[in-house]
Amino acid sequence: MTRIPTALDAARRIADGSLTCEALARACLDRIAEREPAVQAWQHLDPDRVLEAARLNDRSASGPLKGLPVGVKDLIDTGDMPTTYGSAIYANHRPARDAACVALARRAGALILGKTVTTEFAYFQPGKTRNPHDPGRTPGGSSSGSAAAVADGMVPLAFATQTAGSVVRPASFCGVAGYKPSFGLIDRTGVRPFADSLDTVGVLAATVEDAAFFASVLTGRPNLRVADEAVRPRIGLCRTHEWHAATPAAQTVIEEAARRLRAAGFDLREVALPEGWRGLFEAQKTVMAYECARTFAPETQANPDRLGARLRDLIETGWAVAPEAYDDAKSLAAEARSGFADVLGDLDVLLTPSAPGEAPEGLDATGDPVFSRVWTLLGAPSVNVPGLTGPSGQPVGVQAVGRPGDDRRVLVASAAVARALAGA
Amino acid sequence: MTRIPTALDAARRIADGSLTCEALARACLDRIAEREPAVQAWQHLDPDRVLEAARLNDRSASGPLKGLPVGVKDLIDTGDMPTTYGSAIYANHRPARDAACVALARRAGALILGKTVTTEFAYFQPGKTRNPHDPGRTPGGSSSGSAAAVADGMVPLAFATQTAGSVVRPASFCGVAGYKPSFGLIDRTGVRPFADSLDTVGVLAATVEDAAFFASVLTGRPNLRVADEAVRPRIGLCRTHEWHAATPAAQTVIEEAARRLRAAGFDLREVALPEGWRGLFEAQKTVMAYECARTFAPETQANPDRLGARLRDLIETGWAVAPEAYDDAKSLAAEARSGFADVLGDLDVLLTPSAPGEAPEGLDATGDPVFSRVWTLLGAPSVNVPGLTGPSGQPVGVQAVGRPGDDRRVLVASAAVARALAGA
Repeated sequence: MTRIPTALDAARRIADGSLTCEALARACLDRIAEREPAVQAWQHLDPDRVLEAARLNDRSASGPLKGLPVGVKDLIDTGDMPTTYGSAIYANHRPARDAACVALARRAGALILGKTVTTEFAYFQPGKTRNPHDPGRTPGGSSSGSAAAVADGMVPLAFATQTAGSVVRPASFCGVAGYKPSFGLIDRTGVRPFADSLDTVGVLAATVEDAAFFASVLTGRPNLRVADEAVRPRIGLCRTHEWHAATPAAQTVIEEAARRLRAAGFDLREVALPEGWRGLFEAQKTVMAYECARTFAPETQANPDRLGARLRDLIETGWAVAPEAYDDAKSLAAEARSGFADVLGDLDVLLTPSAPGEAPEGLDATGDPVFSRVWTLLGAPSVNVPGLTGPSGQPVGVQAVGRPGDDRRVLVASAAVARALAGA
Repeated sequence: MTRIPTALDAARRIADGSLTCEALARACLDRIAEREPAVQAWQHLDPDRVLEAARLNDRSASGPLKGLPVGVKDLIDTGDMPTTYGSAIYANHRPARDAACVALARRAGALILGKTVTTEFAYFQPGKTRNPHDPGRTPGGSSSGSAAAVADGMVPLAFATQTAGSVVRPASFCGVAGYKPSFGLIDRTGVRPFADSLDTVGVLAATVEDAAFFASVLTGRPNLRVADEAVRPRIGLCRTHEWHAATPAAQTVIEEAARRLRAAGFDLREVALPEGWRGLFEAQKTVMAYECARTFAPETQANPDRLGARLRDLIETGWAVAPEAYDDAKSLAAEARSGFADVLGDLDVLLTPSAPGEAPEGLDATGDPVFSRVWTLLGAPSVNVPGLTGPSGQPVGVQAVGRPGDDRRVLVASAAVARALAGA
């Protein structure tokens, strides 16, 4: 098989006429035809309509994403494709419109390839997708299909969302770049809500540069685009208060990453998070459960029996949270957010595990978002940087995290880390 | 006509069996039948289905809102009624589900009476509704129908939303209590977005106590319920940086309110807002335009010609805002939010105008949200306290504002202010 080009390569070649949108779409569809039976990344895909749209793009699209195929997590509305939110309740749902992020991608010329599998409402009940590196392992969740499709070379770019760890974890398990922006950076209109103060739209791509490019276009922020900046970011090696959850594989990978970064001449220091931050992990769970219970009030009333058991449990947990406990959790988060700059000091980013280790074996669970919950609660930009592998040869990413609003710095640092890990 | 009871009265009487849900619904429908031709508050109302639902409530509903009729702003999804968002684009839209706030109301036994008129997507293009106190004047917007229906005694409770001033302004113009909670207090799932970091669900009722009761049930926060607390809140009389926009009518009303509150023995002090807050007004406009442009990307692409001229203008303005200007506006807001407690000091609430004066004459505009923009940006709870009138005999409210998260204090203070204004 011919590998599909990176998004940046494809954009250059489409712009200079050496690649057509149709040929790129065909390359994606060929790869999908070959691999989808094993990977099962797609919830909805109509090859004929894709090719028709690609030819239309060749004739009339313009914009920096012209003809670039994008996979859309099926938690995100599309006006011309079904949208199930991974739920039996919405099996036949057809939204009236695109979500804003999808419209912004189309506005820039992108080709919406199809819908990728999500877990049920982006919670823990897995869909059908398998890890392309090992079909017996989970791709992670909830952006399972987007991560698997990008990892398998089926599509150069994909949308994902994160409420706990649904961008960074599947990116780590599948070995792709995953960028969860600062809270609110990409508009959420038309994205199925789960927990209003946590839900964040993110992107997945083969490389950090591609993810940054995609996000820079979507947000109209050219400075998010990352070139080959010759920077050596100041990095805080941060074991976090959840280090106990890191398997030996994840611990070894972080040590290996530190070794390679030091060898490349990076300034790397150990950073301990404040004791007062120890409660943030539980605070995220409290906020998520409380908000989820209210968000799902309509489905709980109309179709309680068609909600998965894990989600029903969380809803029940959420109703049991006292409003005062919720308020305390939000206050703790607000305090930590405003103290974030002090914790980093003169460091550019923190480097932490992305996930507890390699993708777990089995398809009945999607792994643990333990290393992302806190950063999502704080609205901090974070990136899964791929490049290393664990003892079983499976991908294991490391996570770069920065101050809320400091997305450019995190992307630049992540790209530099990726190059250093690759020995470039 | 027999006036419908307040929500609290009706709840008591339904609980003790002296009023049936059906009789209450009939009283609302009778009033609507009589007055709707003049007021035009309703976008959708099906009396037969309402009575059927009321009888069902009598038989099987339980909960603190049992049988209480609620008007739902037509910006908010209902699974059993059309939902137009006040837009030609969505004229035939039927959502699959209720919004979360509607489901929460039903869960507590409420009777969803019908959909009330909103301006186009809750922006400035008016609907058909007239001010019940003077059919030649606007009811205000964007929660036009909800405010008019409550003011006219058609329904005891209604949902509203606020992005700039759409709860407080129509409440002031129509002479009802309007409560815009702290940002995020009532779940927004299923409410048509306009600007993600501003949109807030609020409530309207005849009295502050009714509004507080409704919100306390919706949020599961019993402490928001306001009884006849014998408190004399410490009040900061605050002319704000937008005082120049207050007409003589509004200025006189604030002075009259201050006179009555002092006469009732309240501690009232003049408070000047920090100079650094002067930019917050423009910051709100910047954030609203920027986010609106992105939120409406789908409609802008699919149906630009079916968007009203004022909204198209705002979208264009939003695209012209540089991301750095947006970031600066958000930073200024975050700074002011964290300094809010210091500005209030030992005061319980600020008292400011709700709107520039009486409802303007004419129906081609809905008035100016000038006195609400800043509080919405800061996510601060605010209440329109009705009770006074202007030189033309039209209602003019005053606005109580408190610290973000301090909703109980604002509601208790607002109820006390209302009693003092009424000379009680």
